[in-house]
Amino acid sequence: MSYLGVGVSPGKYAAGSKNDSKAIDRKVRLAELILRTAVCGLALVAALLVATDTQVKEIFTIRKKAKFTDMKSLVMLVVVNGVAAAYSLVQTFRCVVGMVRGSVLFNKPLAWLIFSADQVMAYMIVAAIGAAAQSAAFAKLGEPQVEWMKVCDMYGKFCTQVGEGIASSVLACASMIIVSAISAFSLFRLYAGNKAW
Amino acid sequence: MSYLGVGVSPGKYAAGSKNDSKAIDRKVRLAELILRTAVCGLALVAALLVATDTQVKEIFTIRKKAKFTDMKSLVMLVVVNGVAAAYSLVQTFRCVVGMVRGSVLFNKPLAWLIFSADQVMAYMIVAAIGAAAQSAAFAKLGEPQVEWMKVCDMYGKFCTQVGEGIASSVLACASMIIVSAISAFSLFRLYAGNKAW
Repeated sequence: MSYLGVGVSPGKYAAGSKNDSKAIDRKVRLAELILRTAVCGLALVAALLVATDTQVKEIFTIRKKAKFTDMKSLVMLVVVNGVAAAYSLVQTFRCVVGMVRGSVLFNKPLAWLIFSADQVMAYMIVAAIGAAAQSAAFAKLGEPQVEWMKVCDMYGKFCTQVGEGIASSVLACASMIIVSAISAFSLFRLYAGNKAW
Repeated sequence: MSYLGVGVSPGKYAAGSKNDSKAIDRKVRLAELILRTAVCGLALVAALLVATDTQVKEIFTIRKKAKFTDMKSLVMLVVVNGVAAAYSLVQTFRCVVGMVRGSVLFNKPLAWLIFSADQVMAYMIVAAIGAAAQSAAFAKLGEPQVEWMKVCDMYGKFCTQVGEGIASSVLACASMIIVSAISAFSLFRLYAGNKAW
């Protein structure tokens, strides 16, 4: 069994029932493919919803335009979701290649790389959503104790679209968290046999 | 080999070199113990630093008191760090019991439980830090586009202590992320043998 030209056949696999493990591997890989495609789509939608969001408000003669660059947390949300979408596209492609080739097991360095990248991606999206949701909460509810006003009272349409962006990002994040658990599974099951250490 | 009275001996372990795997298990368990103790201590320090933080400011005749309950993200930071500290205390106790008993391998339901709880805890701390760091950034730098003022100009001492709390929480979070990778390892290596499915 080879993967991207560098094949390993970890520890004890060969000894067991090959058909059983292959069937499970196929299911895991299919789940990974679906979830990575979902992350790609949802993160892209989130980034586009926030990045294209604008609203113009005229107060007497003053013309004010709200856009996502007015708030750093929204810029971060767009960037992180953009990166997650691009990363997931590459990973989806890798999954498809793996399925077409019929390779079942990863080699360890690649499994470590994918595991680490998935972890970084999942935690980055969670942090970006935390920050963006906090900003959205301030904008929607204000913070009377420190006299921060409810900006959403002025820019209702803008806030609604940002909310949709955050919702899409939350779905992308949930998928990414499951994907990162799958890549942890793909990596650490290689470490069961003593020879593999 | 038994763990908390419910023992399993996963798939292929018995076949390999027992001494090697036991030595590695001891190292992994020791690392887990140290990291869980670190999470417990650091999260407790973070919660206490933020929860005990107050500053009184007198502006002419008006007396204003800043406290962590003025900002919901700080309340969330205190709660999440408190929960993480308590959870890590229980887990540290479990690690010590495991080491004293000399049990090496988990049973699967327990490994799943610990893995899931660790994941939830790690992502919760990351989200709480994201939100608190965003609030701190608004308080320190303001957000001129939406006319939110720099609260830290007024409550400098209060902001510094919150910053220390967030820093302690970041360290707790980093340890928790490594712990959650260790528990993923402890769980998924049980799935290498085909019998184990």
